[in-house]
Amino acid sequence: MTAQPAAEAAAPHLSARVAALPPDWLRDNCPCPDCRDPHSGQKLFQITDLPQGLAVGEVVEPSAAGEPSVEVRWVPDGHRSPFTVAWLDANQPADSALTGDRRTETGKELWAAADLAGRVPEAGWVDYLADGVQRARVLDAVQRLGFALLRGVPLQEGQVLAVAETFGHVRETNYGRLFDVRVEPDPNNLAFTSARITPHTDNPYRDPVPTLQLLHCLVNSATGGDSGLVDGFAAAAALRTEDPESFGVLTRTPVPFVFRDDRTELRADRPLIDVDPRGRIREVRFNNRSIGTLRLAPPALEAFYAAYRSFGELLLRPGLRLDLRLAPGDCLIFDNTRLLHARTAFEQDGFRHLQGAYADLDGLGSSLAVLRRADALDPLAELLNGPGAAEYLGEEVTMTEHMLQAGALAEAAGAPAHLVAAALLHDVGHFAGAPDEGAGDTDHRHGHTGADLLSRWFGPEVTEPVRLHVAAKRYLCTAEPGYREGLSEASEYTLRLQGGPMTEAEAAAFAALPQAADAVAVRRWDEQAKEPGAVTPEFGHFLPLLTGLLRG
Amino acid sequence: MTAQPAAEAAAPHLSARVAALPPDWLRDNCPCPDCRDPHSGQKLFQITDLPQGLAVGEVVEPSAAGEPSVEVRWVPDGHRSPFTVAWLDANQPADSALTGDRRTETGKELWAAADLAGRVPEAGWVDYLADGVQRARVLDAVQRLGFALLRGVPLQEGQVLAVAETFGHVRETNYGRLFDVRVEPDPNNLAFTSARITPHTDNPYRDPVPTLQLLHCLVNSATGGDSGLVDGFAAAAALRTEDPESFGVLTRTPVPFVFRDDRTELRADRPLIDVDPRGRIREVRFNNRSIGTLRLAPPALEAFYAAYRSFGELLLRPGLRLDLRLAPGDCLIFDNTRLLHARTAFEQDGFRHLQGAYADLDGLGSSLAVLRRADALDPLAELLNGPGAAEYLGEEVTMTEHMLQAGALAEAAGAPAHLVAAALLHDVGHFAGAPDEGAGDTDHRHGHTGADLLSRWFGPEVTEPVRLHVAAKRYLCTAEPGYREGLSEASEYTLRLQGGPMTEAEAAAFAALPQAADAVAVRRWDEQAKEPGAVTPEFGHFLPLLTGLLRG
Repeated sequence: MTAQPAAEAAAPHLSARVAALPPDWLRDNCPCPDCRDPHSGQKLFQITDLPQGLAVGEVVEPSAAGEPSVEVRWVPDGHRSPFTVAWLDANQPADSALTGDRRTETGKELWAAADLAGRVPEAGWVDYLADGVQRARVLDAVQRLGFALLRGVPLQEGQVLAVAETFGHVRETNYGRLFDVRVEPDPNNLAFTSARITPHTDNPYRDPVPTLQLLHCLVNSATGGDSGLVDGFAAAAALRTEDPESFGVLTRTPVPFVFRDDRTELRADRPLIDVDPRGRIREVRFNNRSIGTLRLAPPALEAFYAAYRSFGELLLRPGLRLDLRLAPGDCLIFDNTRLLHARTAFEQDGFRHLQGAYADLDGLGSSLAVLRRADALDPLAELLNGPGAAEYLGEEVTMTEHMLQAGALAEAAGAPAHLVAAALLHDVGHFAGAPDEGAGDTDHRHGHTGADLLSRWFGPEVTEPVRLHVAAKRYLCTAEPGYREGLSEASEYTLRLQGGPMTEAEAAAFAALPQAADAVAVRRWDEQAKEPGAVTPEFGHFLPLLTGLLRG
Repeated sequence: MTAQPAAEAAAPHLSARVAALPPDWLRDNCPCPDCRDPHSGQKLFQITDLPQGLAVGEVVEPSAAGEPSVEVRWVPDGHRSPFTVAWLDANQPADSALTGDRRTETGKELWAAADLAGRVPEAGWVDYLADGVQRARVLDAVQRLGFALLRGVPLQEGQVLAVAETFGHVRETNYGRLFDVRVEPDPNNLAFTSARITPHTDNPYRDPVPTLQLLHCLVNSATGGDSGLVDGFAAAAALRTEDPESFGVLTRTPVPFVFRDDRTELRADRPLIDVDPRGRIREVRFNNRSIGTLRLAPPALEAFYAAYRSFGELLLRPGLRLDLRLAPGDCLIFDNTRLLHARTAFEQDGFRHLQGAYADLDGLGSSLAVLRRADALDPLAELLNGPGAAEYLGEEVTMTEHMLQAGALAEAAGAPAHLVAAALLHDVGHFAGAPDEGAGDTDHRHGHTGADLLSRWFGPEVTEPVRLHVAAKRYLCTAEPGYREGLSEASEYTLRLQGGPMTEAEAAAFAALPQAADAVAVRRWDEQAKEPGAVTPEFGHFLPLLTGLLRG
């Protein structure tokens, strides 16, 4: 057991608040390193590992400085769970429709064609690739509106796969990793003819259905062949309002969707409108081409067909459909669980050739969340690139150069991500201090100031080595012969302001701290990171590593 | 409009039976070539294209010979839909639990460990590859029991992808197309440590979740590291019986599953037990490592956690878990929406290295259905390889050689699949006749006999050219100068028995038949397919093509 910090009973309102929480839920969320792997963030126990009759025994507040927090001491097993007050605030139990689930209607913006006038979500391919903000805007549109349009995608066969791989993984199907949408001599699907195709979703006979589709236009010189999109969630929501009985029938009736050719025989039994357990619209499948023979008692068949017609008519309502014509270089990305797509018939007076591929919403959502993490770090990036970066008292490198060097040294040493981050950010407290603060005072406190600042983004595995890196210098002066002689002139000057070398007792107490070794490691990179003109990566280089460490 | 065959009012019971069917349902299943593309089998109309107030006007029976059938004449639009009585029998509306959906509990065989004693589904890799029967047995086990074990899979890295590609498509995830399950220095998942892992499903934070997992054992020399499988459907069904309230809570509560590392941030909100709209168990997700913070009102949280514990305890019940130890060369294929997998901890006294990949149940089900189609053709294969194959009256090739040659000629000519099949099978009527039947009589009828026999498997695009290929000879003798002179001696002999050349009026009537051109094409390959010793493919070569044409 590591030593516990001194603690005192929590304020009565905090104790009462914690005691009111469902104990199994609270314990299942214990963030301590015995319960949750610090690397992967995964839980290390099973629900069945928790004792029966779990209850909060005592709620105490650590007396050490830092983020406001409580420690819950459990009966019957004596386990201790540290929760920050910020976590308790953010996760207050509540029955909210807005749960953070981005796959149901509550996570979407439903639309009719007129709602998108002048704001069809689109971006140029070059911008999309170069600029994370553009990329996030496009992926957000697919998640929220159900589609986005990329312009100027290179006119190369197979390029549609490269588009999919910018945000996720290609889903291979019986049509291949990609498929050509053009007139085929012996088509196994009407898509590969010049016929009109009314609004539908693709591959309803697959389960899991591909949740995203991409269509990249290579040639579109034929008369006709225009595209149309319909928001199936908006149509289903309208059906629920106008004809709730039909809506109910469609959500309750699994329909067999079938597809067969000489190498394939697929079947999926799914409702036309799938709702989540709370009744929220979650998936729409609509494709008469591949509805097989439904087997139900006659009254149920009649009810289904009446509802099916009703929904089909609603989907054709003119105002719902957004018409657009794909030009060569356009790549449409759309949610195949929500949007129906259509095309007008085309003549053989020219060619029409699209290449399509399927992918999945989960990968797209992941890419978007990771891009947003980088956004979250913008204030930190601004700090390091701002005016405070200019000088580093008494050293021949700027503060930012010094920190980039420390991060690069940690990375080159193969340090784990949290230590690279701590090395990179160890002096961020210098930026946060008031400009007129005295150097001595700044130096004395900058570890704490930095750690507190960083706790907005990172857990203790990053913040505590930063907090302790000043103490680590005082510790090494005592514990390691010859260390003090290697200090730079400025560092020797600040050592005195910081309290000088530790006493033997102080050094022993320091060595017993759980983050002592990490703080010493950061300290050593700190010492080495003062080489004028050393070439280091930019701050952006460290963003993926930093975003990976962001608190959930 | 093509000419309609002569027809008379259907027997009263047939008329009444058709009139009792829901009209929209019946019409949506119209198999006529205007409603359903003969190539792809896809419907050519939308539900909204059907007139309002559809009703059966008249039910008539065609007087022509052939399979028992009726023609439905519709009001108000006069459309005519031909249905075989066999189709009406097979699709009689009925509310049955057994709908053909293979993804819910009703399509499965639930098990506890003892049920599988001595019958763990397994096959050797070489047999599995070589023998469609073995392959179907393995895929059926995965579909029905949730898993199968392949033995002797080559000990090559990447081989797991080849296994997946024998029946479907690899599902790439953030872990790659394949992933190595071994001890990693900086694991982003507990799977990549030596820790014990209790029964769980994989990737619950993905939506769509990968529905199949493959684990290929390359090395397993460490102490421990044994595998276990639990049938999650059996456990969920037991929970429903023993604790219906908990079962209900788990089906109604979407749970946030989360995963994050430096490049990935996934989240899916799904219940632990997902049921279809009729309440049948359809998917199980169970993985405490990645359950995020559930947000509900406190009473709902308490109810959920009680149910979650209850299910978790049930899953650990000793009798449920099938224990097995993977040996090098074993590849386990299992249903990740149903089976939970586990492993015991292992020591570092040896190595354990598995390679895993994900795939999907839909592709596996398709491969199995196609293999079963080939099974369905076994009687046909036996006929062609049986004693009837030995001679072909008056020709220098056997009957089977003749038919294989005709099929090969059609294929080489680039004919569509239905014509290759008709050419290959055109003389199958000779096999079906009684052995003591006179040659003349056989020859006169063998087109009809063959077509009727083939109608068990194929639609009119195959059967009618076969039926008419004898008439096509009589037609060509009249319509094409010089044709009769090219006939073989035996063919000239049978021509007289068949009625000799057509009259001009007969020839004109023949030419007006919709399948006349196809029958003539088959006839020409028939004439050419009499070359002694010509090398042709085996019957098995044509199986994929034939299975692709089988009636749904």
